[in-house]
Amino acid sequence: MTVAPFSFRLLHTDQTSAARRGVFSTPHGDVQMPAFMPVATQASVKGLEIEQVRACGAEMVLGNTYHLALRPGEEVVAALGGLHRFMGWTGPILTDSGGFQLFSLAHRIEVTEEQAVFRSHIDGRLVALSPERAVAIQELLGSDVAMVLDHVVGLPNDAETIRDATERTVRWARRCQDAAKRADQTLFAIVQGGLDAELRVACARQLREMDFAGYAIGGLSVGEEPAEMLRMLEATVPELPADRPRYLMGVGRPEDLVEAVARGIDLFDCVMPTRNGRNAMAFTDAGTLRLRNAQYERDERPLEEGCPCPACRRSRGYLRHLFMANEMLGPILLSIDNLTYYQRLLADARQAIEADRFAEFRREKLAGWAKKPMS
Amino acid sequence: MTVAPFSFRLLHTDQTSAARRGVFSTPHGDVQMPAFMPVATQASVKGLEIEQVRACGAEMVLGNTYHLALRPGEEVVAALGGLHRFMGWTGPILTDSGGFQLFSLAHRIEVTEEQAVFRSHIDGRLVALSPERAVAIQELLGSDVAMVLDHVVGLPNDAETIRDATERTVRWARRCQDAAKRADQTLFAIVQGGLDAELRVACARQLREMDFAGYAIGGLSVGEEPAEMLRMLEATVPELPADRPRYLMGVGRPEDLVEAVARGIDLFDCVMPTRNGRNAMAFTDAGTLRLRNAQYERDERPLEEGCPCPACRRSRGYLRHLFMANEMLGPILLSIDNLTYYQRLLADARQAIEADRFAEFRREKLAGWAKKPMS
Repeated sequence: MTVAPFSFRLLHTDQTSAARRGVFSTPHGDVQMPAFMPVATQASVKGLEIEQVRACGAEMVLGNTYHLALRPGEEVVAALGGLHRFMGWTGPILTDSGGFQLFSLAHRIEVTEEQAVFRSHIDGRLVALSPERAVAIQELLGSDVAMVLDHVVGLPNDAETIRDATERTVRWARRCQDAAKRADQTLFAIVQGGLDAELRVACARQLREMDFAGYAIGGLSVGEEPAEMLRMLEATVPELPADRPRYLMGVGRPEDLVEAVARGIDLFDCVMPTRNGRNAMAFTDAGTLRLRNAQYERDERPLEEGCPCPACRRSRGYLRHLFMANEMLGPILLSIDNLTYYQRLLADARQAIEADRFAEFRREKLAGWAKKPMS
Repeated sequence: MTVAPFSFRLLHTDQTSAARRGVFSTPHGDVQMPAFMPVATQASVKGLEIEQVRACGAEMVLGNTYHLALRPGEEVVAALGGLHRFMGWTGPILTDSGGFQLFSLAHRIEVTEEQAVFRSHIDGRLVALSPERAVAIQELLGSDVAMVLDHVVGLPNDAETIRDATERTVRWARRCQDAAKRADQTLFAIVQGGLDAELRVACARQLREMDFAGYAIGGLSVGEEPAEMLRMLEATVPELPADRPRYLMGVGRPEDLVEAVARGIDLFDCVMPTRNGRNAMAFTDAGTLRLRNAQYERDERPLEEGCPCPACRRSRGYLRHLFMANEMLGPILLSIDNLTYYQRLLADARQAIEADRFAEFRREKLAGWAKKPMS
């Protein structure tokens, strides 16, 4: 019997919200959803040895096509056995397409119907990225899930610019689909449309007709109000097929994840746990801790009681000392703690969905975080 | 039956050299000697989670009294349970006394018979360190082995300055011994004397009469020729009691360790494996590799075949990429590899001593390293 290399099984839908419990299967293993992917931009989750990433509870990681294509180059990654072997991650990998980095990192970008041309943020050299090229790079990287190249624009923006970029995103999605060749890699589409619900719905409907293995919602969490983002999810998610995973790109804070899961999102990625960890901020069920604060100097408690991560086998006082003394281990341990926190949050969310009590879970979590505002 | 909290058992002396195989017992466990201690200057082996330090094979680590007294302060470490609990290391810990850092780091130091007064390298504030204070700090830190405060001077230097500092080191050793109160901490003396063999011998004889639990040789590896250092070992070691561990402070390169073991040294510490690792240099049996070199771009091989460390589960090409992309994981993985290399070297040295073939082991190692000069 031949088993399809990719499948999404919907195990249960919560009775108190739109939250879903699913399993996404890939050639490199299963991902329990809703799931959070640590970000390994340059084939490394910053500061973590790969076994530490696994120990945080992660099942799937994200690599950035834009960064890896510029350095070391996809040919080098392929020569060294592909991204899994290169970085030593044996589980599933999703690569983004570079669309978001074109918008956020590249210099002097010019987008035509054919392709985007930009200057590298590393050395200023001129680089071109077309839908076909984005697929070819990701095929050389060998990720399990490749993303279509989308045209991301800043918000707020004029309606015409957003509409034009959204329509181009749909045409580029088709070109990516036509270009994709690897049987052991699948392609997710990306819904764009700024903060225009009608445009998001139209985009989602067109992409749905093209029958992708998964659907992402992109171009959000770029500075808009959280309520605006949730409004876009509420408009878009019902237009996506129920039997495919739904991925909210680049989001976000713990409360954003919980709100998005409540609206039917299955997959997330974000640099926040590692980036904030490097800046001495720890996420807990009672809000965030800023470890440089003098109040922690002699604090014997762990960051959070019951957390099994190595940072929580130390005292807050020790962690503060590491930051005050500029020791690398401070950023490392807080990155591990925050990634573990995100994985624990998603694991608890999955349990809550199975028990049909996600609405209650959401209330509890938001109440805990409200004690100290997340930032 | 009461067991003495500290003991040194000489298991075997090599028949082909003066190399010794011993076991040093402490309240936090045994140390197989000859041994190498990773340096945890500020209660952290730079870049490594404590379980990674253990996995490298280390049994004992070193903490720096000077650094910890300035930041976070020994009172803070004591309030957080002492150095073992603070940093999560359950094995033996040795703390130095600050003598070497006064010489190498402190600003505007003034040494009188009573004490050293200096300005902190962190914030310029005036600090005093006497023998009694060095012991009191180390007792608060709670290390297993404390070092006496020694008076270190730069080399080359005039004979009178070196003699004066050496004689003061002996007087200060006595004051440290008189000040020490903790039954679960022992004190090692430090032989000084610059590059004057007679002075070293006289210093060793005086300290030997005071009956310390261990003897260190200090003030070496500060810029002199390696042959000069070995000449000092050859003069000093025969003056030290055979039934006490001998510790060569701050040394060194792999070949220095092998040459010193051949002359009867039992214990080492050095920042070289971690510092050089952070600078992209890997130690191997065939000499050093500089991982930024373009030749490693597509090199699929591990740093060293047969090394069990996590860095050697990746390719040289991946490690090079991490350094070129400024990823923290590059320094982390090379630090782990180098510490593992040092521990493997010492483990192999212990086996060679047990088999009475240390001279042969020394020749083999030096021949391998000579292929590429160590640096």
